[in-house]
Amino acid sequence: MPHIALPPDLPGIRGAMAFRPETARPLNALVEILLTGPSTLTLGERELIATYVSSRNCTRYCHSIHGFIAAAHLGGDEAVVKQVKTDFTQAAISPKLKALLAIAGKVQQDGKLVTTADVEAARKQGATDLEIHDTVLIAAAFCMYNRYVDGLGTDQPEDESFYRERGKRVAREGYVAVSEEYLAAHATAAH
Amino acid sequence: MPHIALPPDLPGIRGAMAFRPETARPLNALVEILLTGPSTLTLGERELIATYVSSRNCTRYCHSIHGFIAAAHLGGDEAVVKQVKTDFTQAAISPKLKALLAIAGKVQQDGKLVTTADVEAARKQGATDLEIHDTVLIAAAFCMYNRYVDGLGTDQPEDESFYRERGKRVAREGYVAVSEEYLAAHATAAH
Repeated sequence: MPHIALPPDLPGIRGAMAFRPETARPLNALVEILLTGPSTLTLGERELIATYVSSRNCTRYCHSIHGFIAAAHLGGDEAVVKQVKTDFTQAAISPKLKALLAIAGKVQQDGKLVTTADVEAARKQGATDLEIHDTVLIAAAFCMYNRYVDGLGTDQPEDESFYRERGKRVAREGYVAVSEEYLAAHATAAH
Repeated sequence: MPHIALPPDLPGIRGAMAFRPETARPLNALVEILLTGPSTLTLGERELIATYVSSRNCTRYCHSIHGFIAAAHLGGDEAVVKQVKTDFTQAAISPKLKALLAIAGKVQQDGKLVTTADVEAARKQGATDLEIHDTVLIAAAFCMYNRYVDGLGTDQPEDESFYRERGKRVAREGYVAVSEEYLAAHATAAH
């Protein structure tokens, strides 16, 4: 049961966003730019960073949904997503993404843990300043989204198929399109 | 020295935001709504929540600047801000704000630590669902801002007077107004 009166039919961050559409807009805009905007990181790579951080924060809703969005962008490869959650050093991903995930993992704990050596290692694998910036901000942003979802005690379904279906849809239609729909439906009902 | 090539004359989050104006806009919009938008929590109360969380994350730039913004909204009372950073249970603040700070402190660690009892305690002191929501989201958002500032290794001046002066200005003019100015100045230079 959520800690406050969220719309009962919207699990995870969707209920929280429908409750407060004013803050939902910048929250959606941020994730849209970071995960789907123009970037030299692929859609799949960015979703894997979000998934990895959410997995380390043990936020089921976020690591499940973003894991399935990542898989959808990676040609349906759910195995690589599971491997990134378990031990990304052994995953079939590029050395550059591994170096970026190492930075993301430190940001998840505390931004001050990121060292010059971590950043040099990523650069050596071809990472640009903008890619390093976005990795840090994606990791930081998911530390927010995860705490938001957990801190309100939102519903986080256990059934994987729920996330798989929604993940495919978000991968196809984008975050803002999918969420504007329920914001419109719930904006008046929520307050 | 920052980990990536940020504009050298802009410390803390300002350099990071000038580097990436596309993400700066939703980051600014979010903090503007949460900390200065319509709310039954006072400006000072909301800034104290942001200050407290940033202080627990040991992010000097954020807890200093928001501490001085809070003080500006509290008639210049810097002592109460210091007391909130040290031990809020002894601070001259309302029982409601103490209950909300307890929730914010748990969100800072892990949103899953927030219990029904924490939320009941806040309600007993008169907190509304919207106030509880905003407390959780302010705490979660500052876990992002703090990690963003620290994870990029941004400059965080040691001189308190730097923060005092800027805090007063942000309290007077608002976040978006103050930051649009440097975004405009640096947008073309940064990339």
